[in-house]
Amino acid sequence: MEQLREWRSRIAAELEAVVAFWERHSHDPEHGGFFSCLSRDGSVYDDTKFVWLQGRQIWVYSRLYRTVPRFRRPELLEAARKAGEFLQRHVRPEPGSTRAAFALRRDGRPERLQRSFYSEAFCALGLDELGRAAGEPRYRLLGDPKRDPPSEPDPEAEAMVEWGARHVLMHLQRGDSVVLENVSPEGEELPGSLGRLMNPGHALEAGWLLLELSGRRGDADLGARAVAGLVEGPLRWGWDPQHGGLFYFLDADGHCPTQLEWSLKLWWPHAEALVALLAAQRLQPRPELISRFLHMAQFTFDKFRDPEHGEWFGYLNRDGSVALSIKGGPYKGCFHVARALLMCEEMLGDILDKEEIKE
Amino acid sequence: MEQLREWRSRIAAELEAVVAFWERHSHDPEHGGFFSCLSRDGSVYDDTKFVWLQGRQIWVYSRLYRTVPRFRRPELLEAARKAGEFLQRHVRPEPGSTRAAFALRRDGRPERLQRSFYSEAFCALGLDELGRAAGEPRYRLLGDPKRDPPSEPDPEAEAMVEWGARHVLMHLQRGDSVVLENVSPEGEELPGSLGRLMNPGHALEAGWLLLELSGRRGDADLGARAVAGLVEGPLRWGWDPQHGGLFYFLDADGHCPTQLEWSLKLWWPHAEALVALLAAQRLQPRPELISRFLHMAQFTFDKFRDPEHGEWFGYLNRDGSVALSIKGGPYKGCFHVARALLMCEEMLGDILDKEEIKE
Repeated sequence: MEQLREWRSRIAAELEAVVAFWERHSHDPEHGGFFSCLSRDGSVYDDTKFVWLQGRQIWVYSRLYRTVPRFRRPELLEAARKAGEFLQRHVRPEPGSTRAAFALRRDGRPERLQRSFYSEAFCALGLDELGRAAGEPRYRLLGDPKRDPPSEPDPEAEAMVEWGARHVLMHLQRGDSVVLENVSPEGEELPGSLGRLMNPGHALEAGWLLLELSGRRGDADLGARAVAGLVEGPLRWGWDPQHGGLFYFLDADGHCPTQLEWSLKLWWPHAEALVALLAAQRLQPRPELISRFLHMAQFTFDKFRDPEHGEWFGYLNRDGSVALSIKGGPYKGCFHVARALLMCEEMLGDILDKEEIKE
Repeated sequence: MEQLREWRSRIAAELEAVVAFWERHSHDPEHGGFFSCLSRDGSVYDDTKFVWLQGRQIWVYSRLYRTVPRFRRPELLEAARKAGEFLQRHVRPEPGSTRAAFALRRDGRPERLQRSFYSEAFCALGLDELGRAAGEPRYRLLGDPKRDPPSEPDPEAEAMVEWGARHVLMHLQRGDSVVLENVSPEGEELPGSLGRLMNPGHALEAGWLLLELSGRRGDADLGARAVAGLVEGPLRWGWDPQHGGLFYFLDADGHCPTQLEWSLKLWWPHAEALVALLAAQRLQPRPELISRFLHMAQFTFDKFRDPEHGEWFGYLNRDGSVALSIKGGPYKGCFHVARALLMCEEMLGDILDKEEIKE
């Protein structure tokens, strides 16, 4: 337990350092909102505002402000609020639209729209959390006042969660021995490379989401299946035996993936792995899970963390050398690292509290 | 010139070996058409038929059959014909559609459509060349009999060529010192990383296309601009001084690109470079261009060619090690290598003939 205690301190300090990096480099005092395209030293190499990362950074700041006493700093809430207002002013490609742009110019003019709905999802995530942190429901409304979350469980939302969980489980294939990135709408394996594609990071992320759900529902069967198939599985088949680290993509039959970036080691699957291992440990305490967590934490801090300028590198070559020196870009901002550190700090607290009660 | 003579033989032999690889491994005797997803040893790892690569392989086989006496083998034309008929039967997503699918199942059922028009373009390219090779205009028609190319220059087609050349030249920016992948419709530099993105391979490919045009038109100014800006330029700023080879993407201001695959060395930019250098040499004979060609040819054959199983690797890491062991996939098939070898063989012939006349 001593090692876990040390990691709790290390993770708490890293969370402070990471948030400080984004506070120092990413704020736009002129227009509000956040720059995410930051070079290794934090300087802005592109002032495009990517909407996924606006919503996500609003979420991080608001959640920290609301739930972690040492982050209850007015300037953190103020930055989230300014970004929330920037989104509310500019994110719709035209007035009254229910769509959100994918990228905005620095001053808010819409630049690009995506076909998928992730921009909308991350706006909703960020603004909802901002509404809770600020205690002002106006941020929680994306346009429809009927959708203000009621305090009672919402049957429509619960049905969506149920639908989501069922669809995640469809990706567990071949007797739960693999997690396939793409399956048919009926949950059948698709032909060819597309059907055999695996993404260990997505599997691990899905793993801890289902573990949260199984905890909330007291559904032990779901939890056990998630630990075996979505946490221990991807850590086994997704790990590079030669250089260590989780591959970005793999082929379930061992062919070479056709994705050019398949062998890169990305920061976020490793962040998700840390969360997934502690979520598994909370449900099924086992020394094996603790030692995997310690190993993963050491690997991740050694390889991704930048002790010189702060924050984590996002993209390493297979051998662990840095492939892209940027700290942020169109898809990396203030989100996965901070969220993982926050969740690990919380879960390590729970695990250590229980141990202290036993002792 | 002795070295050029040696390279002409080596390139001619390599062209034979490369075509033999695709004849041995990529034909589908059952349904017609070509598999492009081939592992290192040529075995099929996915039987999806990618339409870009159907059209391109039809072009290669037909062009070789029509223009190179030693490739005038009936079985080559027969394979192209079977693939052409496969496309004519299956490529339209629905009857009467003017669109072509992006990917078909092995038996021809449409699987995916793309928004861009490259599937249609490569179908037209392949079927047109098949029509010339077979001497049967029916292959040249994609549906509209009025579009059968007349023997007189077609003013509409010439206007399109003019439009294309003008738009290629818009990508030469900053006093022709860089070639930007994306510019505004008016030819202005775009803001941010998107605007600064460079792709040396595309620049080199555009370079030899404009050199062909300048030759056809006797436009020496266009030729000189293409040699300086689109051949010598990208070979200077696109070359990796540390490990050699052309980067896939770069940022015109020296920032780290946001493309995860930016530092990979791909086969096709190197194939385009060989063509571009000889096209430049034909226009502006200079020892410097010859020595660059010899160096590029040696690098390319050393790094990309697979002496064990034939064909070229497509994707190397920055340091030159193999990143993807596949010989073909959704975007690599029987096209760039064979086309470059064919064009280099022809151009080396021209260059050496002229030298012999001088001697």
